[in-house]
Amino acid sequence: MQIVTLLTDFGIEDTFIGVMKGVIYSIAPQVHIVDLTHAIRPQQVVQGSLALTEAFPYFPAGTVHVAVVDPGVGTERRALAAEIGGQYFVGPDNGLFTAVADLARQAGLPVRFYALDKPEFWLAKVSKSFHGRDIFAPVGAHLAAGKTLAQVGTLINDPRRVEIPQPHQEGGQVIGQVMVVDHFGNLLTNLKPQHLSAGGRVLISVAEAQIEGVVTTFGERQPGELIAMIDSSGVLQISVVNGNAAARLHADAGTTVKVQFG
Amino acid sequence: MQIVTLLTDFGIEDTFIGVMKGVIYSIAPQVHIVDLTHAIRPQQVVQGSLALTEAFPYFPAGTVHVAVVDPGVGTERRALAAEIGGQYFVGPDNGLFTAVADLARQAGLPVRFYALDKPEFWLAKVSKSFHGRDIFAPVGAHLAAGKTLAQVGTLINDPRRVEIPQPHQEGGQVIGQVMVVDHFGNLLTNLKPQHLSAGGRVLISVAEAQIEGVVTTFGERQPGELIAMIDSSGVLQISVVNGNAAARLHADAGTTVKVQFG
Amino acid sequence: MQIVTLLTDFGIEDTFIGVMKGVIYSIAPQVHIVDLTHAIRPQQVVQGSLALTEAFPYFPAGTVHVAVVDPGVGTERRALAAEIGGQYFVGPDNGLFTAVADLARQAGLPVRFYALDKPEFWLAKVSKSFHGRDIFAPVGAHLAAGKTLAQVGTLINDPRRVEIPQPHQEGGQVIGQVMVVDHFGNLLTNLKPQHLSAGGRVLISVAEAQIEGVVTTFGERQPGELIAMIDSSGVLQISVVNGNAAARLHADAGTTVKVQFG
Repeated sequence: MQIVTLLTDFGIEDTFIGVMKGVIYSIAPQVHIVDLTHAIRPQQVVQGSLALTEAFPYFPAGTVHVAVVDPGVGTERRALAAEIGGQYFVGPDNGLFTAVADLARQAGLPVRFYALDKPEFWLAKVSKSFHGRDIFAPVGAHLAAGKTLAQVGTLINDPRRVEIPQPHQEGGQVIGQVMVVDHFGNLLTNLKPQHLSAGGRVLISVAEAQIEGVVTTFGERQPGELIAMIDSSGVLQISVVNGNAAARLHADAGTTVKVQFG
Repeated sequence: MQIVTLLTDFGIEDTFIGVMKGVIYSIAPQVHIVDLTHAIRPQQVVQGSLALTEAFPYFPAGTVHVAVVDPGVGTERRALAAEIGGQYFVGPDNGLFTAVADLARQAGLPVRFYALDKPEFWLAKVSKSFHGRDIFAPVGAHLAAGKTLAQVGTLINDPRRVEIPQPHQEGGQVIGQVMVVDHFGNLLTNLKPQHLSAGGRVLISVAEAQIEGVVTTFGERQPGELIAMIDSSGVLQISVVNGNAAARLHADAGTTVKVQFG
Repeated sequence: MQIVTLLTDFGIEDTFIGVMKGVIYSIAPQVHIVDLTHAIRPQQVVQGSLALTEAFPYFPAGTVHVAVVDPGVGTERRALAAEIGGQYFVGPDNGLFTAVADLARQAGLPVRFYALDKPEFWLAKVSKSFHGRDIFAPVGAHLAAGKTLAQVGTLINDPRRVEIPQPHQEGGQVIGQVMVVDHFGNLLTNLKPQHLSAGGRVLISVAEAQIEGVVTTFGERQPGELIAMIDSSGVLQISVVNGNAAARLHADAGTTVKVQFG
């Protein structure tokens, strides 16, 4: 059975998500719909882009990901569909698929973008403020039901990109930052194993705390201890064992994380 | 595949919703279940009624909507099922379906209500406080599996109504109110395009703020500006572009919204 | 259609749950996936164990429950699958299935535990911190797709247990506690009807409040009144009619509840 996923900044208090599912099932009654998350912070395209990279590798080929973090809804920004590494992505042309496309290109996988310009695959009436319902959900459903990208849009080669903060070197240090705080208060950074491999002892500074060394599991330290480890998605994570690092350190997305080598 | 939707004030912290889905799949294994929302404020029947009107038009004929906002559970209030405009609704007889039924009647669509009085379609043991699980979910599942309204209940013509606040004229003004605050902090009012068309310049007052004119999209104003526009469900919405109007104005459901004409 | 449920302490802000669903559908495309709850308080194995007991009786035979409340992830703790009363349970070996197994044994139903030791049924790469994705979801999916417990693991007879607080007698009183606060602010206790049946008038003390007698429905008292009743899962619940008892009494999980007889 085909899968359509939804990733938005819509929250789950309102009927927005339920309505999008009604639209999808009306067009493609046989799909499974999976919520990736609806808690992207409002209009945070970078956060949405990173969340997609964590999730899509675990879905089968042919999955359609409908993603809506869309501060430009109702303006002239284009609507897009893309094929990236054998999966499909539908959403606004604001850089939301930058990180997924970059990851696919690095892996040598094909990446193709299409501008959505065939209103016959949208709802009959398109509002100015809810393209998730009126354009992205129906196009995603049509793709899941067998339509091709060339049927629902026109090939383009200039999708917009979003700048995703990258670590940089400064003196002997690597300067990164917290990208996301997860449900447990873990701080997920933009630092990867290669940023920690300059050799020697690693010293990590975040907020006013310092952490010596990187552990491989929570179980190596006692409950309540502050640790750094490579998380399940492959980035450096700052955590408190069985506790909440964000609350302990008063850290949030954007907080600087420095790596020194001793 | 048949669809059963769920709309409640149960939240998602507990297992209430998961349990209702277990009951539904036990009776009707082939349906899709869609959550409309479980964040109706506790016992706010009017809010639930309005949320249903926003969602149901996007579902196919034959969809069964199980809705539970039920301050009277365990009292003598009846349980209902209804056919409204080709879709089915199941829930308590407290006015929860008032707005949907009114909308359907205005569109000339048939509306029929049945009192649920056939316990053979309920769970064997009915609790005093969770009819969502014990009566509404199983009846909804039986309808999705092909039972008729006449099989699960008895036709009635006196369903209870709930009073949904309507705008009124006062001097040259139209006085409405905020009905719902959405996830983005947008203020959704009970004012519709016809309330804004008395002619001349429109001046909208809400909390201590005043807004001149109604825009058609967020993109017409800069981030941070306070705007009024007709939202994707057709009502007047007060918003801050890429911001949170409820927080800015300290407004909530019930806050008065006045329209003057210049 | 087979059902796989998910119960975790992962919250729904991140893509954790969406990713687990991608893994499950990749292995078992034909299942329904039901969220029981993802709001178990972080690492609260007892709360997770009790939530499972409330939910599983409403699912059909053959349902697979994947449950992840896992403070020991990445340590030497085993991974488990179990058959309990005709349903399947997959998760960490930390006592999470204690309450379900006890309930099944009391009902004379079979209970068998298996240690998961066949990595061919896990993801190819297993992280140190997300066994929900890498071990429990894939094993659950394989069970839903028809694999047997003996194929995915090895029979054991020493699953770990968690201690679930039980009421005790003290003088003429029964001393229990609040186990969970639900979405409405109802206080769910570990007291059951047998703890109230010593005879005579029942007086319940919780926080600084006292309640005389146990009602059978909310409707017996006026909105705003504090009541005690047996809830829909069969335990003593302290509530405010159409209100929030936890907020009124400043009570939470762990708050003592005393029963006296007059």
